[in-house]
Amino acid sequence: MRLGVKLIDIGKRGVLLNRADARSIGVLDGDRVQILNDVQGVSVAAFVDTTTTLIPLGIIGVYQKTNERLAVSEGETVEVRDADRPLSLDIIKKKMNGGKFSKEETYTIISDIVRDDLSPAEMMAYITASYVNSLDLDEVEHLTRAMVETGERLTFHTHPIVDKHSIGGVPGNKISFLVVPIIAASGLKIPKTSSRAITGAGGTADLMEVIAPVEFSASEVQQMTMKVGGCIVWGGATNIAPADDRIIIQEYPLRIDAPGQMVASVMAKKLAVGADLVVIDIPVGRNTKVPSLQEGRRLARDFIEIGDRLGIKVECALTYGESPVGRAIGPNLEIKEALQILEGGGEPHSLIQKSTSIAGIALEMAGKAPRGNGEKMAKDVLTSGKALAKMREIIAVQGGNPNVRSDEIVPGSHEFVVKAQSDGYVIDFNNRSLISLARTAGAPQDRGAGILLHAKKGTRVNVGEPIFTIYAERAWRLQKAIEEGRRLMPVLVEGMLLDRVPAEMRWG
Amino acid sequence: MRLGVKLIDIGKRGVLLNRADARSIGVLDGDRVQILNDVQGVSVAAFVDTTTTLIPLGIIGVYQKTNERLAVSEGETVEVRDADRPLSLDIIKKKMNGGKFSKEETYTIISDIVRDDLSPAEMMAYITASYVNSLDLDEVEHLTRAMVETGERLTFHTHPIVDKHSIGGVPGNKISFLVVPIIAASGLKIPKTSSRAITGAGGTADLMEVIAPVEFSASEVQQMTMKVGGCIVWGGATNIAPADDRIIIQEYPLRIDAPGQMVASVMAKKLAVGADLVVIDIPVGRNTKVPSLQEGRRLARDFIEIGDRLGIKVECALTYGESPVGRAIGPNLEIKEALQILEGGGEPHSLIQKSTSIAGIALEMAGKAPRGNGEKMAKDVLTSGKALAKMREIIAVQGGNPNVRSDEIVPGSHEFVVKAQSDGYVIDFNNRSLISLARTAGAPQDRGAGILLHAKKGTRVNVGEPIFTIYAERAWRLQKAIEEGRRLMPVLVEGMLLDRVPAEMRWG
Repeated sequence: MRLGVKLIDIGKRGVLLNRADARSIGVLDGDRVQILNDVQGVSVAAFVDTTTTLIPLGIIGVYQKTNERLAVSEGETVEVRDADRPLSLDIIKKKMNGGKFSKEETYTIISDIVRDDLSPAEMMAYITASYVNSLDLDEVEHLTRAMVETGERLTFHTHPIVDKHSIGGVPGNKISFLVVPIIAASGLKIPKTSSRAITGAGGTADLMEVIAPVEFSASEVQQMTMKVGGCIVWGGATNIAPADDRIIIQEYPLRIDAPGQMVASVMAKKLAVGADLVVIDIPVGRNTKVPSLQEGRRLARDFIEIGDRLGIKVECALTYGESPVGRAIGPNLEIKEALQILEGGGEPHSLIQKSTSIAGIALEMAGKAPRGNGEKMAKDVLTSGKALAKMREIIAVQGGNPNVRSDEIVPGSHEFVVKAQSDGYVIDFNNRSLISLARTAGAPQDRGAGILLHAKKGTRVNVGEPIFTIYAERAWRLQKAIEEGRRLMPVLVEGMLLDRVPAEMRWG
Repeated sequence: MRLGVKLIDIGKRGVLLNRADARSIGVLDGDRVQILNDVQGVSVAAFVDTTTTLIPLGIIGVYQKTNERLAVSEGETVEVRDADRPLSLDIIKKKMNGGKFSKEETYTIISDIVRDDLSPAEMMAYITASYVNSLDLDEVEHLTRAMVETGERLTFHTHPIVDKHSIGGVPGNKISFLVVPIIAASGLKIPKTSSRAITGAGGTADLMEVIAPVEFSASEVQQMTMKVGGCIVWGGATNIAPADDRIIIQEYPLRIDAPGQMVASVMAKKLAVGADLVVIDIPVGRNTKVPSLQEGRRLARDFIEIGDRLGIKVECALTYGESPVGRAIGPNLEIKEALQILEGGGEPHSLIQKSTSIAGIALEMAGKAPRGNGEKMAKDVLTSGKALAKMREIIAVQGGNPNVRSDEIVPGSHEFVVKAQSDGYVIDFNNRSLISLARTAGAPQDRGAGILLHAKKGTRVNVGEPIFTIYAERAWRLQKAIEEGRRLMPVLVEGMLLDRVPAEMRWG
């Protein structure tokens, strides 16, 4: 059926049909139509909403995300028919029945995901089936390659290209802001694509955006890396491994993080940016993604094996994940803390040490430093000021202000200091509660929102001493965070009861 | 945040927010908000779409299905906040990890489904996890009870209440139109709720709608049954086991039909209508839901066991499912065929025999006929004209024309006769292809669309003899069905090659 186009300002995928037209086409709410833009030669599948009044007969309303691919203008006409059932659904069913995805089958599913040919529910069936009947290494390799092949790739003519990745789960992990400039200042190339927070208080891309733009095309990432040796951008803007972002968004409500999918997700991005050498930071501990060293080692082996199959040399660092990295959680606070170190500040020591360890591994892998000397070399690059100078070049090439100073970056103006209710030792941080609290305060959307820890694990605090401060940009968010903090108790001081009812709980 | 209500004529669940308001609330497209209508005291969760122009600041657009529960009027105000993550998601994750649903956990999930608190993707995670890590009998019992408890129930004060169910998968299975009047004419009560087609060419409710309204409340179903002994209504309108319909709609794209879920789905409806005795028709054969007798017997045991736990006496009939039941497929054609038999037509014999067998089992279970005599008694009720008289009462009580005659019901005016290309024996019908062809011709939405089979399995046909006729209400649908028929070859005549390329294929 030929229909005239009306563009609809609803920020998602889909189309809106008059119910009578939908019936003529033979579709109901939630069914799939195929839309052909014959001018551009583009054919796009979309899911149908129906109305009896908003859209007249003969017209199709096209929502924004669908039109990003369909590229029609108001008033043009398109051909609309009921779409065939995607082959992917049979392949997903096969996995539900305990089968194994072949290379071609994986490619079919990932292509359909990239083309928006699967509904969120259908993607969730894929994700759930792959989680319950977990992917073996062959399937992980297929998935990795399919995600790379359905997106853009960088091609560097100089080598080695270095990359790093932290698998997440620990708050405040801003080490990229030290590792990337150290690597680039050492003469290596590191095109760092990173993510925005989905469940966290600030992804590396959210943090970088405090001081510079982060949305670039793949070729811009390549050019910037060639020019200054590195960059820190949002991967979601590059069209590198686009299937991965779509899968991750679906996984979020159920907190799904199957090891096989995680390995494919990370390695696809590394393969697509042309990395030769990759260091992977695997935080281990309760309330992280990897609860035990044993699981961490198994995951590391998978990363190394998949890297081997892809021609990428991988080393993994199992790191301590039971406390936040550094003292700051939330975009402004974290960037401020990282800049302070680049500017010569000698602490938090744990953050410096983790960053120079990871950078040191990369320097050794690249042959820049002899085995055992990488960390020292990384530390030298940091203390010499070369890392700061390089970071300024990176900020400049991305279009930020290269002269930005840590003291210019300030947290939100609404704050609340949480103090010790009794004398004792700080015995525990709950990562998940800290992240939840920072998010309630407004992070990462409100850049100034977050948490600054004053007490460190193992230190003694006296009654009335500050344990941490909550910052927010808006008073009501601060209030909400304060209330949530009373419930969550993200910091524990020794001797405190853990099983009192909420009403009687007191802060650490 | 307090927002004014604008009702939006989009026929689905959800709300539309100005992007700036969404950001203030702290939600993105696809996130969940909780909406409180303080006047009615109703709180409803809904998923968010965003816009920058269609909805001004301070306003929330409410889609139709969400407002069915929220019940607000244009211009009223509601309180909107970001919704908490439903507890159900953790329970679903537990099942993904191989756990078992407890009674309380099942109830939590089913309640959330009925309240629209789970997104389609989240429901699909539940369905997929329950399919891969299949439900045991305890979980099936919990699921059955939870589906009953979250909907309406009928309570009859006379007993026994009889019911029947066909699990589907075989086209043309219109036996309810014979079984229900036979049972009711025998003095028993049979409140038959049935479904509309999702994947089929016409559900029992679609067929009944040709001759009478089918949408009634639960209490109307009860009253009609008390008055004339039976009825044939659409279960979806009754709010009986409403969770089941929502689950089935999600299962449709992936053709998921896990035995445990199927048993719960059927038995929940039977328990909710107050059935004491149930006959279940399990068609067995290639291209049905149950490929082998062994699987049919296993499924039958599960039905009987769950019935036992619920206090319902169940008998199962494993029936021949490799050919359509009768000759007609599609609403008008099937109703016509059923009425012809009620009016005294002696064929198709296979349809009569299947109907009287199933009715006979129920008559024996109810003590109306001695063991071994049920089928004969059913046949007597049919040939005596009592079943026709009862059917007229049922049509009348549902508001249809009780004097309707089979010759008044006509198929679509566009038809195409498929003839034998060679002499030979009809060796096979492909159920799925026949259903697909009838749907392409327009069934079940176009009531007159469908297929009438002329040749029967095992009979000899000569070149040029009609094998089947395709009917449609619209010329272009007929054309599409003819093209699809060439590809699918739903009827096979002996000697035909099965592996030729489509262009060279000829009709059976």
